[in-house]
Formats: sequence, C-alpha cells, structure tokens
Amino acid sequence: MVVIGGDAAGMSAASQARRLRGPEELEIVAFERSHSASYSACGIPYWVGGDVGHRDELVARTPQEHRRRGIDLRMRTEAVEIDVPGRRVRARDLESGAESWTDYDKLVIATGARPVRPRLPGIDAPGVHGVQTLDDGQALLDTLAGLEGRRAVVVGAGYIGVEMAEALLKRGFDVTVVNRGEQPMATLDPDMGRLVHEAMDGLGITTVNGAEVTKILTGPDTGSPDVPGGTRERVRAVATEEGEFPADVVVLGIGVEPETTLARAAGLPLGTHGGLLTDLSMRVRGYDHIWAGGDCVEVLDLVSGRERHIPLGTHANKHGQIIGAGAGGGYATFPGVVGTAVSKVCDLEIARTGLLEKEALAVGLRFVTVTVESTSRAGYYPDAAPMTVKMLAERRTGRLLGVQIVGREGAAKRVDVAAVALTAGMTVERMTALDLGYAPPFSPVWDPVLVAARKATAAVARAG
Amino acid sequence: MVVIGGDAAGMSAASQARRLRGPEELEIVAFERSHSASYSACGIPYWVGGDVGHRDELVARTPQEHRRRGIDLRMRTEAVEIDVPGRRVRARDLESGAESWTDYDKLVIATGARPVRPRLPGIDAPGVHGVQTLDDGQALLDTLAGLEGRRAVVVGAGYIGVEMAEALLKRGFDVTVVNRGEQPMATLDPDMGRLVHEAMDGLGITTVNGAEVTKILTGPDTGSPDVPGGTRERVRAVATEEGEFPADVVVLGIGVEPETTLARAAGLPLGTHGGLLTDLSMRVRGYDHIWAGGDCVEVLDLVSGRERHIPLGTHANKHGQIIGAGAGGGYATFPGVVGTAVSKVCDLEIARTGLLEKEALAVGLRFVTVTVESTSRAGYYPDAAPMTVKMLAERRTGRLLGVQIVGREGAAKRVDVAAVALTAGMTVERMTALDLGYAPPFSPVWDPVLVAARKATAAVARAG
Repeated sequence: MVVIGGDAAGMSAASQARRLRGPEELEIVAFERSHSASYSACGIPYWVGGDVGHRDELVARTPQEHRRRGIDLRMRTEAVEIDVPGRRVRARDLESGAESWTDYDKLVIATGARPVRPRLPGIDAPGVHGVQTLDDGQALLDTLAGLEGRRAVVVGAGYIGVEMAEALLKRGFDVTVVNRGEQPMATLDPDMGRLVHEAMDGLGITTVNGAEVTKILTGPDTGSPDVPGGTRERVRAVATEEGEFPADVVVLGIGVEPETTLARAAGLPLGTHGGLLTDLSMRVRGYDHIWAGGDCVEVLDLVSGRERHIPLGTHANKHGQIIGAGAGGGYATFPGVVGTAVSKVCDLEIARTGLLEKEALAVGLRFVTVTVESTSRAGYYPDAAPMTVKMLAERRTGRLLGVQIVGREGAAKRVDVAAVALTAGMTVERMTALDLGYAPPFSPVWDPVLVAARKATAAVARAG
Repeated sequence: MVVIGGDAAGMSAASQARRLRGPEELEIVAFERSHSASYSACGIPYWVGGDVGHRDELVARTPQEHRRRGIDLRMRTEAVEIDVPGRRVRARDLESGAESWTDYDKLVIATGARPVRPRLPGIDAPGVHGVQTLDDGQALLDTLAGLEGRRAVVVGAGYIGVEMAEALLKRGFDVTVVNRGEQPMATLDPDMGRLVHEAMDGLGITTVNGAEVTKILTGPDTGSPDVPGGTRERVRAVATEEGEFPADVVVLGIGVEPETTLARAAGLPLGTHGGLLTDLSMRVRGYDHIWAGGDCVEVLDLVSGRERHIPLGTHANKHGQIIGAGAGGGYATFPGVVGTAVSKVCDLEIARTGLLEKEALAVGLRFVTVTVESTSRAGYYPDAAPMTVKMLAERRTGRLLGVQIVGREGAAKRVDVAAVALTAGMTVERMTALDLGYAPPFSPVWDPVLVAARKATAAVARAG
C-alpha cells in the first residue's frame, strides 16, 4: 500500500489499515513532501496568535511515531507521477533529488489542497505570507518577530482570513481585512456576514468589502542589510480598486483548491471543482484499488445532492478512517456532508450548516427564511450572550435546509443540532419538539435553534 | 376556556390560544393558587446561590402582563374540583375563602408537580426547606440571611439536590449532601455518578451515599425570641442510618410527583407514575375538550416506548404551545421525549439523554456500552477541558440508545447531538460520519460524541 500525502487523510488511512493488518500482511509506504506529517493546519492561526505555544503542539503524531507503528513514512519525498496501469508511483527525495519507482497493490491519494495564490505583481515579495503549512506559519512568525511596523493586511475574509485577523490583532497589529465579497464570510448569507462585519469593527479590525486586490506594492527593506545588486524589496502596501492599504506584513487567506496535479496527469476522474471523485467507500470512481480522501477530493453534499469541495480536517480524518478500513480489508462508507463549519473572531462565534440562500436557489429549491435573536443561557442567568440564528426551510415540505448562527460564547456549537437534523431530513416542525438539554446556565427554556424552528414552521405554513 | 395552573404549561397554552383567537372569540380564565405565575422554578437554585439577584427576574411574564393580553388570570385562587360532566370548575379565593363555579367549553389542566416530602419526624421544623416555588425560595433566603451557623444539609442528590449544593456552597456554607442512592445523580449510571461524586468532593461538598434519612432532629432555637408556651424549636441535624449530620439549615431536593389530586377525583386517566395520560395533541385520553400538560402529565419516551414522568420546564413550555394551538382551533402534536437533561455543580457539567443501563434492561433491550475520555476543544488549544462520554447502543442493530456526559465547560450541551440522533433513530455507525462543527476552539478534530460513536460501532460489531 502506497500513500501519497502524510497529513490527516493519508496518515489516518495508513494508521487504520495498520490496525487491521500487521506488517507481515501489509507493507505501508507513505510519501510526504514537507517537513511535517499529521499536523493540524486548522491550528496555525492560534499558534500565530499565541494561544498555542509551539508548532510541535500542532503535530498529532510525529514521523518517528508513525514509523514505530510500522508505517514507512518518507518525509521530504514528493510523489511526482502515478503510473496507474503499472501500479507504481515515482517519487523524488527532495534533499538528494534522487527519484525511484515504488510498486503498489493499493494506492491512497491524499495530496491535500494548495492555497489560491493569484498571479499579482509583488505577490512573492518578502512579507507576503500564506498560512497553509507549519513551515508557512513559522515563516510568518519569523517575519512578525523582526518587524518594525505594526500594520497588517489580511487578504480574504473567509475562515482563514478572519482567524488570521484575530491572530494578528492579538499580536498587537493594526489589522485591515481586504475582502472582495459583499461582506466578510462568504460562507454566510450577506445579512449574517454583516453581523460579522459589525463585530469585527467593534474589535478594532478594519474590514474593506468589495475590494479586489490588484497589486502588492513593495519598497526598500530598510530593516535588512543590502543584498548583492542593490537594496532588498519588501511589501509596503496592498493596492485595490478601492484604494491602497499600507502593510508591514500581508497574510493571504484567499482559500484553497484541490491539489490534484498528479491525479489529473494520471487520468483519474475529477469533478467540477477540480477534486477527485470517489464512491461511498472513498475509492476513486472506476478504480477498485485506488482510494482518495481529504482536501483533494470532492464530497457529496447531502442537502443539495451536489458534489462540493470542503477542505476541513474533520472530513479528512473521517475519510482516512474509511479508506484505512477498506484498504485493510474491512468495510465502511462515508455518506457525505451537510456543510457544517464553525469559526470565531475573538469572542464572536460563527457557524453554518446546510445551504445558504444562493446555494439553495442554485439547486432549484424554494424556501422560506427566518432570523431570530436569542441568548445562550436563560435571560436572567449571568453571562447570557446574544446570538442570531437564521434558518432556511423548504416550502411545502418544511424540510430544514440550512442554519447560520452568529453570536458570542455558546453560539457556534449549537449548529450541531441542525447538522444532525439535516442528516436525518427533519422538518422544521419536527424540530420544534426536539428534546434538547435545558437548564438556566445552558439554554433559555426554548433553545435558540428551537425558537428559529418555531418561527420557520409558521413561515412555511404561511408561504403554502 | 379555563386553565388550572398559571405556570409554564398553563400560561403558554393560554397565551398561544389568545394569539390564535381574540377576546371576542374566546374567553380565557386561569386559576393560580400561589403568588406567582409564569416563573422559572429551574432558576431558583441560581437565585438562592446569588447568580440571579431578584425573584422578579425569574418571572417571565407578570399577572398584569397576562391580563393586558386578555387572559383573566386569577392569582391566589385554587381550583378545588373539576365537574367533568357539568363542564365546570370550582375554585376558591385563598384570600377570602369564597368559592364559585366557572363553566368551561375547553379545560386545560396544568397543575404541575408537588415535592416529595417524606413523613419524617421533624420534617416541618423551621429551617427545613423545599425549593419548589418562588415563595419557597424566598423563605429559604430569609432563613439563610438570619442564620448564625454555617452548616447546610441537602437531602437528595438529583438535579435539585446538586444545584442547591452549589447554591449553598456559594453562600459560604459547609455543605453535606445526604443521598440514599449508590452515587449522586440517579439519572446517570453509577459509574458516571461516581465521577460527579469525585468532582463534588473536589469542590468541598461532602456527599454521603446510601444514606436514607430517618429523622430530622430539632433543638431550641436560640436565635429567636421565645414563643408562647416555651422555646421555639428548629432543625439541628439530619439523622440517617449512616449517622447524624449537624445542620443549621436543611434543603429537601428529593424530587417531585405529578400533582393530579383534582384529576384523580374527577376520574381522569392516570398512568403508572401518577401523571395524566394524554394523546399526541395533549388531550386527556378519551376527552376531546380537556387538555393537560407540564409536570402533571406523563410523556411518551420515544426510546423505550414507555410513558415517563419528566418534570422539566422545557417540556411544559412545549406542551403549552401544543395545547394552545389545539384549543385555539389549530393543529399541533407533541411526539414525545428522549429523556434529555442537563445540569451543573459549579464548573462540573452533567448531561444525559436516552436510556440508562437499568432503563434499557427494564424494557428488554440488549446493548453494548462504551466510555471515552476526550476534551471540549483541540487538545493543544487553551482551556481544553476534559469530558467523559458514555454511550449505549443496541446489539445487532447498532441503534443509539443513550448518552451520558460528565465534564467541564462545553460538556453538557454536546448531549443535544445525541438527542437529535435518538429522535431520528440513528445507528452509532451513522453517527460516526455526522458533520459536526469543527475548529480548534470548539472541538477536537473528532468531536467527543463521535469518538464514542466510533468505539460503540466497534463494540456492536464485536458483540454480534
């Protein structure tokens, strides 16, 4: 068994297969091109922000631990070609440059995602950072440590963007988020994104919406010694059609796309988002000996019935389990997702599951929407925190289609109730009677999600 | 329409019916024997403990507000007889003693529950308090304010018992909880109750298990002036077969039973727990013009298929909505409960849903159990708090039967995921793929409930 990619999906698959089959039954080789395996990319903003003290804390299992468990994990080794008919992979040792072929009976493709990095002038200048890998995080921290100025610009206002805005704010920077969308968090409807915008304002984060970046402006790097041939340049500002924003450091949080260069070259099936297409057992469609999982695949959205690309560590881990079970001779399937995601900016919590309005419209659904204000605890209990819950329900059937929540402590994980209800295909009317935990420190007597469900039930009845 | 009982179920029913039918269409009279209507009994421990400053904060809607909405709410008025054939209710004005009959077309019985008060010597002595009503809470606070000693004994270690232990601890008392069960929280399996016991020890609350109270010991009340006929007596200790526990104040938290004296006298159908039996629209079985809801009814447990008595404000509010819809000419049903409950003792959170081991055995279910340790956030994230999750799954089918959680911040409300999964009849294997919200501040990459589901899936497979 050969695994391409040593992060969550790949190493979960390898570990699970090893649990089911000992080294005498199954040889497992894994290639990882970076310096780290099995790390939490989702934790990088908290490491940069100082909540997490050291990069090693983000590593779930070291290469040595994997090797002790009988997985031949080869670090700094990049797979460069998959020979599907020949059932072999060509890999390059990035230290020595040496290449060799490794045969496989079973192949796992877990090549992850790559950050979107627009081809803009200045994008490669010193001081412009992505935050995809631990090495990226270290490079950013090194920049921050040596920085004289205090102005940071974050490009993009999705999950990574707002989390990095928090991290840089905690590091004492003046933070400006440059966002090409109508509101921050394009993963929310604009009316809910507006709440995030307002809260970010309140936190002292400047958000500029509708601003497409046109250029990264650079200038002499006065803090560094001259290099041969002249003065070193570094980032000075981010230019957009809405104006220029001075920057001592720029963080790119524009998003990622599936890293499927190898798979494409090998002729494996890709979807409309560029991700590998798999069946329910995470086998690549049409191939009974090749599996794929994690950020390089598309997943079935159970609400819309469409394939989506949702790069999230939690899915990657689940995929790895399924793949490892199958490759180890067992049986398990991944039924799909409902599009749940949670995040926070300082004490503002943000969550969604199911479909946004535009996503529901795009697949032909007609729906009602309701928005309610409630609190995390009984109103009379100390620290009852406000939250806004928006709910979409299908017209006629009343089936739940989606929930978005923006609030303070206790808001985000309430979305899980809706995620399970979506999975079960519940109507909002059935949800009104859900037996959720109630005690004054934990919830109003009607949980905010139930309040939304009641209002949605009435809206469905009115809409007919 | 006549409503007997002016708390959550009764006044929710009245309010919902009024929303659907104006005063010209439907006259609504409600009788409440106490001084308070529409209050949160669940909030009393937090008022006694000082988290909530004033009893008025626990009142969701005052009698005046109800009256302004066109509900003729008569306080300090006790219904004393239901004449079912004559469709009328006899009520007594508790101030004047005057009685009169009121005719009804529609009757709502929402008489609530009464505290279990064992007939023990000394149980009525000054210093012994129940905490069922706001008046009870006020009486307890008056006692605490005038107290010289600092020793409190709480009888009972269920929800009210442990919440009152917290409240008295916050008031600076030495607190002993006298519990006849094997462990505190008989609503948990003993292995999970033991975790609560250990945590209460850690908080400085002494818990004595297996201790049945035999007598309340009294002595002269040296703090009060003599009364005619001799010295006033007050509580001094609680005697059990396990020994005597000195007490300057005693709080009874033994539980409640349905208050169905009137209903029984009127020949209405009661279940094995003494609660009224209703149909899915909350009509009393066999009567199309009498509804009942809240703590005086039994509810269908969707997991066991049996009727249970679960006195909880959140159910009472839901019942009220259903009754109000029906009595107002609309249509709604209450499908039943899955037995969810959450509570806390200081920073220890306690939750359950579905069936305990003994409850599952009692209805003929065979099952596997698993227990896992996890954390509320990613392990590397600050303030990741430990939690223990126990899960029961049916043998062969793998259907989820119950979940219990004991932990710190972020533990209790995770039970909601299991509550929805129980409602949907999910298997633990299906649960392993649930798309729950993941980000390091909110969850490990495998949510604790999913970790339990994975382990339970394996246990079901092994058990065959």
